[in-house]
Amino acid sequence: MDYFSSDFKLGILGGGQLGKMLLYETRKFDIYSKVMDSSEEAPCKIACNEFVKGSLMDFDAVYNFGKGVDVLTIEIENVNVEALEKLEDEGIKVYPPTKALRTIQNKATQKLFYIDHEIPMANFNRFAYTSEIEDSIANGGLHFPFVWKAAQFGYDGQGVKVVRKLGDLNGLPNVECIAESLIPFKNELAVIIARNASGQVVSYPVVEMEFHPEANQVEYVICPARIDKKVAEKAIEVALKVSSTIKHVGLLAVEMFQTQDDKILVNEVAPRPHNSGHYSIEASFTNQFEQHIRAILDLPLGSTESKMAGIMVNLVGAEGYTGDVVYKNMEEILRLEGVTPHIYGKRETRPFRKMGHVTIVNQDIAKAREIAQKVKETIEVVSKQ
Amino acid sequence: MDYFSSDFKLGILGGGQLGKMLLYETRKFDIYSKVMDSSEEAPCKIACNEFVKGSLMDFDAVYNFGKGVDVLTIEIENVNVEALEKLEDEGIKVYPPTKALRTIQNKATQKLFYIDHEIPMANFNRFAYTSEIEDSIANGGLHFPFVWKAAQFGYDGQGVKVVRKLGDLNGLPNVECIAESLIPFKNELAVIIARNASGQVVSYPVVEMEFHPEANQVEYVICPARIDKKVAEKAIEVALKVSSTIKHVGLLAVEMFQTQDDKILVNEVAPRPHNSGHYSIEASFTNQFEQHIRAILDLPLGSTESKMAGIMVNLVGAEGYTGDVVYKNMEEILRLEGVTPHIYGKRETRPFRKMGHVTIVNQDIAKAREIAQKVKETIEVVSKQ
Repeated sequence: MDYFSSDFKLGILGGGQLGKMLLYETRKFDIYSKVMDSSEEAPCKIACNEFVKGSLMDFDAVYNFGKGVDVLTIEIENVNVEALEKLEDEGIKVYPPTKALRTIQNKATQKLFYIDHEIPMANFNRFAYTSEIEDSIANGGLHFPFVWKAAQFGYDGQGVKVVRKLGDLNGLPNVECIAESLIPFKNELAVIIARNASGQVVSYPVVEMEFHPEANQVEYVICPARIDKKVAEKAIEVALKVSSTIKHVGLLAVEMFQTQDDKILVNEVAPRPHNSGHYSIEASFTNQFEQHIRAILDLPLGSTESKMAGIMVNLVGAEGYTGDVVYKNMEEILRLEGVTPHIYGKRETRPFRKMGHVTIVNQDIAKAREIAQKVKETIEVVSKQ
Repeated sequence: MDYFSSDFKLGILGGGQLGKMLLYETRKFDIYSKVMDSSEEAPCKIACNEFVKGSLMDFDAVYNFGKGVDVLTIEIENVNVEALEKLEDEGIKVYPPTKALRTIQNKATQKLFYIDHEIPMANFNRFAYTSEIEDSIANGGLHFPFVWKAAQFGYDGQGVKVVRKLGDLNGLPNVECIAESLIPFKNELAVIIARNASGQVVSYPVVEMEFHPEANQVEYVICPARIDKKVAEKAIEVALKVSSTIKHVGLLAVEMFQTQDDKILVNEVAPRPHNSGHYSIEASFTNQFEQHIRAILDLPLGSTESKMAGIMVNLVGAEGYTGDVVYKNMEEILRLEGVTPHIYGKRETRPFRKMGHVTIVNQDIAKAREIAQKVKETIEVVSKQ
């Protein structure tokens, strides 16, 4: 298959911001792209060759869309896997492969898969319904605190809740879920692995999520992680093990905990470009989006090394503001060294909504961290008065 | 004016590849973009918010298009300046300003401007018609060899010819033109200057065009130029002088000759993103397209420094091939270190047509140069058999 020929079509399920950043890379390679999303307002509409409106969970919509492309990929996990399986049977290249996607899509299945393959992770209990949790606590089978996670359809912090007392369960949807031990981690780390269809594998450096000391919210994604070399090696080793057992094609972002005694536990994975890899647009020889394209087209993978240190700051809607978005003090941050904003183009802000990100690159990671803090303290995502 | 507000519209005259690369940067800032081009097949169509079909040389088309935007810029010089002047009078921000564009658009006017402002350049004669040249030669007013240049509408090597004997004049269009001394230069250099509406000015490093030893064709654009520091300083000084006298807003690419005795002579300028700045996408802190956007929106300009050495190789159609394009050995070049292809998406190749470019970045410029040569020797732009 000649991916640079005029007959080739790449399909992307999901038309959000990740898809849009992926589409920029299809332009570099001049690849014809077709996107399906349920919203006519999808960010991808402006960057793809063809746009189809359709529900990602609908069998017929996904199947009919997939029949018209040569390679099909995703920018979000919540898609109709049955349709993907049928497409795969009929010879369409579906990446990630549906088997890998099935394992990842359901968090209970994902955790059981880790057990089967001796991949270290936090202990957990599985429940068919959230309502079963109370009994388990009463019987002594589960202890506070724990992390409740919906088995499916969680995204961007939705579907996850730290439960410290019975009352915290109130209002949670009564769905299949897991209750996971709350890990008092030293660091949250992530490694992105790329694997092409021929099996070539490369790993990006370990990144570190730095949390706000009080708000318990990720403030900075820092590459490379400021951790012991041995811990970094262990994290990459664990990520590679997940990659080789799950047999994805494309990217696999592996989020991990570094425990107080420097063990590495897998938290969760995503088989696609990931927030933890956004720094790579400015800092890496091959950014994660180009790498995903290379991998799913079975091209040689690019260097995952960094040109310099990179730090990403998420731009989220400020508390207390809902409505037409305004980026306050944007000019101030543009005056700072090595700062690149990425505004996602969402019209309306609301508290904690992801509205964009800013990357800071610098030869000196301490200097980058300083500038990142300045960015964080300066820019405000608010609404018109 | 709040450029990040939902009411703001940026207009671009010309929908080619330069415009497309500019549009990627409007996405990072979430700026609403409107493009006009005479071709329904314009590359920009896939990346802009609104596309208008219209002739760039037609007064009404340009005027009506311009009335609907807040800031108007160009990706090609050949546009109707009268319409731009009227728009400017009516309060539309036109960048480059029409006065600067008028000076640049006509090469004879441009050269006379350099004389007025004591900017060093190659000697020249101006002719109202090419047919007047023969007389001038006969009268001893002009000597072989010289460079014939059409005063207007030349682009990408068209409208330029080295004349070594009378016969070389055959077939040239009978238009306003100049005859310029042929400079036996040591190096051809270029400097990109950015100037925002408030007058902030920054300059990119000097780049060097390396020519094929026999074919007399630019093979590599190399940043930084491998020249004496004093020569580089002089080149930047000259470029800044052109910039400050011409009073552009946005980018100004200044092409220069380094003579055998290390004088700097201005060759010509372009008031927009330029082929000599493509390396900046991968190598610079702020690429030339983002910088142009920052400048015309009167935002603070970004750092022009390089993350590392960058070399650009133009991808042009191979001789002897015309028709549906095929990029031969693309996979081979993707295996090389720090290589990023940019395929422009033109369906058909023909000899010497610009089909894309490839950037090579490396900490070590000698290593980058080696890899660039490998790229040049490996990839072939041919047509289907």
